[in-house]
Amino acid sequence: MTQAPLDWVGRPVDSIDTPALVVDLDAMDRNITRMARFAQTRHIQWRPHAKMHKSAELAQLLVQAGAVGCCVQKTSEAVALAEAGALDIFITNEVISAQKLARVASLALRLKRLGGRLAIAVDSALGVQRLALALGAVGAAHATIDVFVEIDCGHGRCGVSSPAAAVELAQLVTAQHTMRWAGLQAYHGQAQHLHSVTERQATVQAAARHVLDVVHALDEVGIAVPLVTGGGTGTMGYDAASGIWGELQAGSFLFMDAHYASLEREGVQPGFEHALFVRTQVMSRSAEHAVCDAGHKSHAVDSGMPTVYAHGLHPPWEYASGGDEHGILRVREPGAKLPELGECLWLVPGHCDPTINLHNQMLGVRGGLLAGSVERVIRVDARGALT
Amino acid sequence: MTQAPLDWVGRPVDSIDTPALVVDLDAMDRNITRMARFAQTRHIQWRPHAKMHKSAELAQLLVQAGAVGCCVQKTSEAVALAEAGALDIFITNEVISAQKLARVASLALRLKRLGGRLAIAVDSALGVQRLALALGAVGAAHATIDVFVEIDCGHGRCGVSSPAAAVELAQLVTAQHTMRWAGLQAYHGQAQHLHSVTERQATVQAAARHVLDVVHALDEVGIAVPLVTGGGTGTMGYDAASGIWGELQAGSFLFMDAHYASLEREGVQPGFEHALFVRTQVMSRSAEHAVCDAGHKSHAVDSGMPTVYAHGLHPPWEYASGGDEHGILRVREPGAKLPELGECLWLVPGHCDPTINLHNQMLGVRGGLLAGSVERVIRVDARGALT
Repeated sequence: MTQAPLDWVGRPVDSIDTPALVVDLDAMDRNITRMARFAQTRHIQWRPHAKMHKSAELAQLLVQAGAVGCCVQKTSEAVALAEAGALDIFITNEVISAQKLARVASLALRLKRLGGRLAIAVDSALGVQRLALALGAVGAAHATIDVFVEIDCGHGRCGVSSPAAAVELAQLVTAQHTMRWAGLQAYHGQAQHLHSVTERQATVQAAARHVLDVVHALDEVGIAVPLVTGGGTGTMGYDAASGIWGELQAGSFLFMDAHYASLEREGVQPGFEHALFVRTQVMSRSAEHAVCDAGHKSHAVDSGMPTVYAHGLHPPWEYASGGDEHGILRVREPGAKLPELGECLWLVPGHCDPTINLHNQMLGVRGGLLAGSVERVIRVDARGALT
Repeated sequence: MTQAPLDWVGRPVDSIDTPALVVDLDAMDRNITRMARFAQTRHIQWRPHAKMHKSAELAQLLVQAGAVGCCVQKTSEAVALAEAGALDIFITNEVISAQKLARVASLALRLKRLGGRLAIAVDSALGVQRLALALGAVGAAHATIDVFVEIDCGHGRCGVSSPAAAVELAQLVTAQHTMRWAGLQAYHGQAQHLHSVTERQATVQAAARHVLDVVHALDEVGIAVPLVTGGGTGTMGYDAASGIWGELQAGSFLFMDAHYASLEREGVQPGFEHALFVRTQVMSRSAEHAVCDAGHKSHAVDSGMPTVYAHGLHPPWEYASGGDEHGILRVREPGAKLPELGECLWLVPGHCDPTINLHNQMLGVRGGLLAGSVERVIRVDARGALT
């Protein structure tokens, strides 16, 4: 009731109530094809991050296109997506709370029985011990959950820093019969967002050298690394070229937000197109500016303001913050025309992930944003799944 | 399932799963008492903005404490709160879409029949004409909806600028038998956030002079202004002192976010205390920093990062962004102790309104954040109500 009703299917784009989150399904499908081709030609597996789309339907679609499963950041995301049908899920994050680990253990057991699997990252002995306890409490059998040791390859957030600490933790993991030693989680989030290709490439190369040091240290104690997983939309060309990562977690390629599109790009990085939009309407207008009905309750602003999508049809208006519920539109060139009162336009969000988390659903449009119609409603199954 | 379950009532604070949005009910009640006393002693009515809390329960609580009703920004917020029991609602914003105006007209009719009322703002002839059509289509009777003309008193967002334009619009409103001419909506959002008391006071005084010009222009054509409504938590002392505003829309006083608390304050402005918190847990830790499980999917960052709430008990750690799902905690003083792995702490969000919009519910704690327990679960009825 508080968002667009579910009877949108079949209705023309022009009738969509605003603000609404809309997926250009044709553009999304082309992005999936590009990604599948990239993975195939670079001989790398892909496990797109569902923290971005939070939708079981989209996770499934990506698996049908060749992805090995999905990633999530939160226990409750894993539970929500599993309940909606996802079978192969990797929690790329640490869980330290005993009540969450009880849910992790139950879910691991359930997915294993269904022929799927759950994986998780660890970066502390306490985390491994508590996970082992939780697995024991649900009567987990041999290798019930895949465990990756997370290493900090330069991001400065989670993960152990030194090769010695990684070895110690991997030894602890391999000693647990309920866990399957799965390899290394190595994600450099900051590298994703560096503007220059030179900087991004150099950062990935430095991260790769660090991962290699850890792999060698593990090798010295007889622990082989089955898989290094990580990477993202901003660096996937360099991640694949390094030969270090065997699995890519990129998620944003699916929709391509304004921030990622603004980064410098060269041939080694595949190009993707915008497929996620906020439809908005002008509801107030003065001589100097127009005001639309999408503010930062409709789109996240942590990576900057949304951009107005031009279609090559109208002048490139500039969006400025008007607070939680409003956006201010101004002309970029003196004398250009403002949009009319009641006119609808399209915004490309600055950052897909937290934008989607504001919405209960996305309206999937087929046939383009100008003359298409709603083909299906995509549920954001894990919206608000924070725990 | 994706958030804390509803069986939290009676459980101790220590057991709350993280991240979670928690209300200190004792602090909230004291804020309500302060606000009610302020309104009583300054002889001004108050209609707190429900765009902040989005909860019918809290809207009702504020009415019981003396508020005349609530404000909302969106049609769907009005519908959601009315369905949950709110009777006196003011949409302090323009609505131009015919499909939304059909819902506005139906809601106005329904609330009037229930003995309540709906009010709305307009700033264009097109808006008045479309509203009249929608009211006609539902068979609205005399004075079915209260209509305020919004004037731009310096904010530069919605509202007509000149006294002449306000007169023209007020004449159009008074000519509609289905509408009751209710007065002026005059909100200066930017004034709320000016740091210095001198600047804030001067801005409110300039806004008040502009409102007075409009009131005089209306008076000259024989239109009396029943009420000027506006104001906010940052300026309410000056709003009340001006003698111009007869109704205050302040909402944030209820919870008091980090941004409002950081502003300079003098005696004319009442003081409020923090009552809204994000409970978070440290789930990773290095020698240099700790990582907690609350990122900007748990709290909005448009008004800056959250601050760590100290209770006077532990060193004031600094929160830095760790992305969508993580926060980085560092010590402020060299040599100070970081929080332990598994330790829980409390964040004060930078901005209440969009933070609450991320959550389906707030856990209301009685007896303090250190040793209290969950008294009730407060539903965020209008979460995601964007249209």
